[in-house]
Formats: sequence, C-alpha cells, structure tokens
Amino acid sequence: MAPQLAWIGLGNMGRGMCKNLVEKGKLDKALIIYNRTKKRADDLAEKLGAGNTKVAGTVDEVVAGSDIIFTCLGDDKAVNATIDTALQQDVKGKLFVDCSTVHPETSNALAKRIGKKGAEFVAMPVFGAPAMADAGSLICVLAGPSSSIAKVKPYTTGVVGRADIDYADQEPGKATLLKVIGNTFIINMVESLAEGLTLAEISGLGTDNLHKWIEVMFPGPYAAYSDRMLAGDYYKREEPLFAVDLARKDAGHALDIAKKAGNAKMGALEAADSHLVAVKEHLGAKGDLPSIYGAVRQENGLKFENGD
Amino acid sequence: MAPQLAWIGLGNMGRGMCKNLVEKGKLDKALIIYNRTKKRADDLAEKLGAGNTKVAGTVDEVVAGSDIIFTCLGDDKAVNATIDTALQQDVKGKLFVDCSTVHPETSNALAKRIGKKGAEFVAMPVFGAPAMADAGSLICVLAGPSSSIAKVKPYTTGVVGRADIDYADQEPGKATLLKVIGNTFIINMVESLAEGLTLAEISGLGTDNLHKWIEVMFPGPYAAYSDRMLAGDYYKREEPLFAVDLARKDAGHALDIAKKAGNAKMGALEAADSHLVAVKEHLGAKGDLPSIYGAVRQENGLKFENGD
Repeated sequence: MAPQLAWIGLGNMGRGMCKNLVEKGKLDKALIIYNRTKKRADDLAEKLGAGNTKVAGTVDEVVAGSDIIFTCLGDDKAVNATIDTALQQDVKGKLFVDCSTVHPETSNALAKRIGKKGAEFVAMPVFGAPAMADAGSLICVLAGPSSSIAKVKPYTTGVVGRADIDYADQEPGKATLLKVIGNTFIINMVESLAEGLTLAEISGLGTDNLHKWIEVMFPGPYAAYSDRMLAGDYYKREEPLFAVDLARKDAGHALDIAKKAGNAKMGALEAADSHLVAVKEHLGAKGDLPSIYGAVRQENGLKFENGD
Repeated sequence: MAPQLAWIGLGNMGRGMCKNLVEKGKLDKALIIYNRTKKRADDLAEKLGAGNTKVAGTVDEVVAGSDIIFTCLGDDKAVNATIDTALQQDVKGKLFVDCSTVHPETSNALAKRIGKKGAEFVAMPVFGAPAMADAGSLICVLAGPSSSIAKVKPYTTGVVGRADIDYADQEPGKATLLKVIGNTFIINMVESLAEGLTLAEISGLGTDNLHKWIEVMFPGPYAAYSDRMLAGDYYKREEPLFAVDLARKDAGHALDIAKKAGNAKMGALEAADSHLVAVKEHLGAKGDLPSIYGAVRQENGLKFENGD
C-alpha cells in the first residue's frame, strides 16, 4: 500500500508539483493538500479533479492523517512555524520533506527538531521555473539519511522531476546550500542579461540584434529570460514567477554564508542584489527576478518599463 | 579563379582560422600569411604543409599580392597601425576584413579610411574559443556593404565557422559593437562561476558538488570554464586562451560605450573588471579570463592558486 502523502504550501511551484504527484505518483489515496489561504487549495482541488485531492483545514489535520508530508513555503520563518505546529502532535515514524529554499542552518535545525520527535527529515529543494514544475521536469536535490531518501525517490525523477542530485547521508543543509549557491548563478545570469540588453539599447546596437545572438550563443534559460524581458513580462505580470522578496532572500542567504565563512565579497551578486532593492521600490511585492532589467535601465537613464 | 587571400595576425584565433581556410576554403593559391614575430608564421607554414601557405616578410608584401586581406590582431592600436601601413600603397578594389575585437568607433573609422582609397571593408569579429577556431565552429558576425559581405561569405559558415550573424548594409561598427557587448556575457559568466565555486569551497559544499550541478543545469561554456578552473588551468597555462589584457580591453570598450551613452553603470561587469586588474597584478600578461577565479578566491581568504 502506498503511503499517504500530504502537501503544505501551494505557491506556483507547489501547485505544479502536486499536479504531477497526482498524475504520475501512483498514489492509492487522495493527496492531502493545505494552504494558509484556503482558496488556493480549493482551486487546485477543483483543477485536479474529484477524488484526487483532499483539502485539509489545518496543519494538525494534514499531519495527523499522513505518512509523508511535503512542505514548499516562501521563507525560513514560514517553514519553522509550520514544522513547529506539526511537531505538537505525535509524529513518530512520519517523514517530512522540505522543498523550500531556506538557509542551510535552518534545514539542519529542522532535521534536529524533527529527529528528536522520532520522525525523519529530508531536505529536497528543487531547481526549475514554475513552468518546469508544471511539466514535471525539475531537478531535485536530496540530502538526509539514505533510508529516508529512498522513501522520497518514488516521487522525484519521472514524477515531479527530470533528474536527481543525490546527497545521500549528507546533512540536509548541503541540499539547501547547493540551492542557495545555484540560485546565485540564476540571479547573476539575469543581471548579465539586464546589463547587456540595456547596453544594446543605449549604444544603438538594438535589443533585437542582441537577442538573436543570445539565441545562437546561449539557448535555454538565457534566451527564455531575454524573451521575457523584451516582451515587458518583467513589469506586466501579476503573480511573479520568482518574486523579488524570494530572490532577495536567496541572495541574502548566499551573502550571509559568504560572510560567515570569512571576509567575503561577491561583487556581481552584490550588484544584482542592489538592483533587487530598486525593483522592490518600483514594483513592490509583484516585482520579479527579471525586473532587474527595469532597475538597470533606470540606472542608465531609460524608463523602468520598456513599453510605450 | 578564386581570389588571392592573405592573413595578418597569427594569434591563437588566427592560426585556427588559417588552418580551416587552407583545408576547406577551396583556395587555388597559397594563403599568404604574416605575423609581426615571423617565427609564428614559419611554424604555421610548416604545420599546414608545403604549398598551402606563403610567408610574407612585410605588410606591404602581403597587401601587394592579395585581393582579400584578413586582419586578426590584439587591439585597436595594432589594427590601426597595420591598416595605415597597408594604405600607403595602391589598394583600389581590394577588400579588407577585420576579425579583431576593437571599439566600434575604430571599425567605422577604418571603413572610412579604407573607402577613401577605393578599397572595401567588412568588420567580421568572431565568437568562440581558440579550440572552436581550430574546429571551424566559430560564430562570424559580418557588417558592411552587402556586396562586400558576399565576397567574404564563401569563407565563413562551413569553413571557419558554424553560423553567421549577418548585418548586411549596416555600418561595420555594429558588428564590433555586438562583439563587445557579447563578450560582457562571457566575462560575467566567468565572474559568476568564480564567485559560485569560491562560495562552494568556503561554505563546505565542495566544488565537486557544485560542478556536478553546473554540468546538469548549464552544460556548454559554463561547464567548460568550471572544468578549467577546477583543474588549475587558470594559472598553469603558458599561453592564455583569453589573455587578461584582451579581456580588460573588451570590458573597457563596453564600459566606454556605456559611459558615452549616458551616466551608465554596469555593476556586474565592473566587479569582473576589478578582478581582472588583480589577475594582471598576480600573473602578468599570462593571466587568463578564468584567472578571475584566483582573484575572487584571494578576496575571500583563499590562495589564488587552488592546487597544493
């Protein structure tokens, strides 16, 4: 009999992962889903079809009825609060899997608190945009005891993901550490695109000329972000794909890790982070990672928005 | 009858391009080759086989005997000096093709000086590492009158390159402008890798763990540069693949273009450029673009060299 699965946190990543668990996870019971704002859970339940999910009203209710509980939340505070609530009941033998991007120290502390209660913990941050979560083509990074990881793997490659990076028997914080460092590459790529496209415009080369080159030289994520920037998606979108607050959280974690390791300096990342500050000022919480383009444009005498 | 071709400037890019002209360019006369330090020309002539090339002793001699003259030189000063020498004789009807990475204003000024003498000019900077020049898989960017570009194209895709970016009837400076802006992407990519690998080491993630992720998420140039950094190639190599002076020249051109276009700021690029200054101090002229890794390591309390 397959274990009872539950999912806490239905942001744009969580929703896609739930869809794939339901469609390809070979569950023999409805997936229990929970979101702080219940409407999101109700909407997803409707979308995924009758009998495939069961909406829970509280975290207590989620945990009581489940064997494996996934969490996918916005920040360290939300993850800590949710797990602390969960641990108020008997959780012996249950497995918690955190897909959030949190500070590695947070992951390690969670493992300790959960372990004390006789439960298991795996950190499993994922790489990929929301569209990849929808398509089931994320990269899953797993760290924790190998016996616990073995229980999660039936739901990774081929279900929510296209590949695993397996840190079996390494402390859970190693997975979130990779996630945080990996995200610096994404943030720096966006900063580089924003600077390049701005330079193309102010120098008279033209953004279309540069975009053609990007498609030849850097197909994949570069070309995709360049597309979104040129289409103005970076300021028109209502629900951001990589919200500015989350991007700043990730950059902050990376800079904090660097600082704790010594007198560290990450020049490009700091430049990007300062643009994220400007994005937050201009667009508020609906600012997105590629909105860095608007901030770099402004810094170079252009309008934040590239439309008419 | 095929035109008589000549090549001036046998650095690590020029040598590979000459090899492919000889092997695949369907030349019916020996390629005339010239290098300021003649030994390089003699060595290449020997390597490419008897009858395939003819070593010239002076720029005058190159120009007098040729229809199409390619230049591929280190900086604006070298290109200007070479063309000025060339223009002291009758060049009517000849075609000059400059593959160097120079300031767009330099390209446009060359076009003007050459045009006044009744000759033609195409700017054709290329993208790709020396290994790609060897393999004939460069990206060629062509700008100038379409009638002149038509004379160059028999030697681009399928001979020295794998694709053209064709700016027919645009001013030559547009091609070098793309080259300069495109190189900011390469420089920023290397900066991002240097920061990420350093962070992986000082945080305890380990560079091998990060490299595995780079191979999955960013195959291609990222993985290749990461390989070179981890192998210590960035300080062991005698002849750099992308010499620090050339990288600084390119970053400087980009920053100059940005500055002339307004009160411009390119945060990530400036961070990378400051590391190139440190590379030059540490390794001198044999410093390489990926040596930025050493500079970032130093800034974060590690040794410049990652070996024992």
